[in-house]
Amino acid sequence: MILTVTLNAALDVTYQVPGVDWDGVNRVSEVHRRAGGKGVNVARVLAALGREVLVTGLAGGPTGRAIERDLRAAGLPSALCAIAADSRATLAVSERARTALFNEPGPEVTTDELRNFMTTYEALLATAQAVVISGSLPRGVPPSTYARLAAIAAERGVPAIVDADGEPLRHAPEGRPSVVKPNAEELARAVPGGTPAEGAEELRGRGAEAVVVSMGADGLLAVTGEGTFTARMPYTVRGNPTGAGDSLVAGLALGLVESAPWPDTLRRAAALGAAAVAAPVAGDFDPAVYADIHPKIVIT
Amino acid sequence: MILTVTLNAALDVTYQVPGVDWDGVNRVSEVHRRAGGKGVNVARVLAALGREVLVTGLAGGPTGRAIERDLRAAGLPSALCAIAADSRATLAVSERARTALFNEPGPEVTTDELRNFMTTYEALLATAQAVVISGSLPRGVPPSTYARLAAIAAERGVPAIVDADGEPLRHAPEGRPSVVKPNAEELARAVPGGTPAEGAEELRGRGAEAVVVSMGADGLLAVTGEGTFTARMPYTVRGNPTGAGDSLVAGLALGLVESAPWPDTLRRAAALGAAAVAAPVAGDFDPAVYADIHPKIVIT
Repeated sequence: MILTVTLNAALDVTYQVPGVDWDGVNRVSEVHRRAGGKGVNVARVLAALGREVLVTGLAGGPTGRAIERDLRAAGLPSALCAIAADSRATLAVSERARTALFNEPGPEVTTDELRNFMTTYEALLATAQAVVISGSLPRGVPPSTYARLAAIAAERGVPAIVDADGEPLRHAPEGRPSVVKPNAEELARAVPGGTPAEGAEELRGRGAEAVVVSMGADGLLAVTGEGTFTARMPYTVRGNPTGAGDSLVAGLALGLVESAPWPDTLRRAAALGAAAVAAPVAGDFDPAVYADIHPKIVIT
Repeated sequence: MILTVTLNAALDVTYQVPGVDWDGVNRVSEVHRRAGGKGVNVARVLAALGREVLVTGLAGGPTGRAIERDLRAAGLPSALCAIAADSRATLAVSERARTALFNEPGPEVTTDELRNFMTTYEALLATAQAVVISGSLPRGVPPSTYARLAAIAAERGVPAIVDADGEPLRHAPEGRPSVVKPNAEELARAVPGGTPAEGAEELRGRGAEAVVVSMGADGLLAVTGEGTFTARMPYTVRGNPTGAGDSLVAGLALGLVESAPWPDTLRRAAALGAAAVAAPVAGDFDPAVYADIHPKIVIT
């Protein structure tokens, strides 16, 4: 089983509104509600590829229950720990040509609730082949938490991938994770100045076994114990980049579980990322795009 | 107890977003979630005036549970009947100067669920001094339903107020309600051509005991068995007109329960409507505005 951690699980709501009146009343023609958060998206991709997954993290209030209900409906096993505060929603208002995204501030987590999650997390690691730790932290959760989760996994011999931004990313290497996956902008914020390769080396120097930098249409850069690799995309896939990073991380998790060589892992991860851009909803990927682009990705 | 019926109960969500990027990502600075729907707003006003109220109607899914939770938190007693589909949310995105409102399509109600509600409604009427039937109908509920609810109340000697639009408004007089309360536009749609007074007379002719037409800053027109009255506002209150009609209806319900003379009822209803405009949220009213404007309203 691959465990995915989503401490700030969300209910992703999409409103289809043809021709929005931004100062009036709008009838929403279609509403979609779906469990989200980066770890949930990773689990969706892995499940679609036939892998056993388990979604864990924190969820509370009516929005938390809606998240759990959607996970059940999607057939994604979950073991989310309860919090008292209401989980966050994200809203995308989609007009024909443009989309406005609204991110709610999210819940405040108490020390007891986080401690309770830690106990659950340790128990779930017992049957995990790999763990993916990704997304934002809710308020009240210290920025060192991802490093701590990675360290606990490392002690148990479970490879961990951390996909984070800001302070949680800066702290992540301290937990000696198998992979840290920032995108180029996140890396530049965490390690200012220097090239992506230098930034990645810096994170490795601080404890990360490997650093994979996603660079959108420019592919991937991986700095690993086996050397430095790049994955170059043969063409640009147009669509919705939201969730592409999660699909890519799912590919990295597969590589860890299968102990695949880095070039194979990177090719699959890059192809899954591109295939996710072609799918309209985060957590989905287009199998046809995946099949087409996978063999054409050049690893050097 | 005054019973309020909200067949299409809603969760009213407000996002405060200073400076919206309508084609990008926005951080929501404040989120408010509150049970809504016109009957709920009426109940809030009545409860604030110290009246015993009971909220009934239909609610389902995670959104329905959030509605019930908020009613409990607000101390508003409720007996909502369960439906399988998810209740609707409404979303107001508030920038500094303007607000975009998004109305979800709402749930589909089954025949069995409506029948179950009818049974509950009859039982609740036993202790009701008056019933307020207001707002939109969810899909699957016939447009004659408000007439039917009013007729059942009439049989039991419980005075009913219907506040509706479109087909439900056109059907309402068939149930011989004590009061039908359209605004001027709703009345013009239901009875096209002619003055508001003629339209109101027409609805009385079809069975309504009294018709009160709300005309915003122009006050009220009431065509009743005791004659025709107008309530003229001494000045225009600026603010948020959403919920003003519900506050006004609360005033009409008080008049029914107290068997007050029409001029007193209309003065109070018009003052409550104006005081609601001065409050930022539907279901609230400004007591200072109420106290100031109430004695200045001219009834003729």
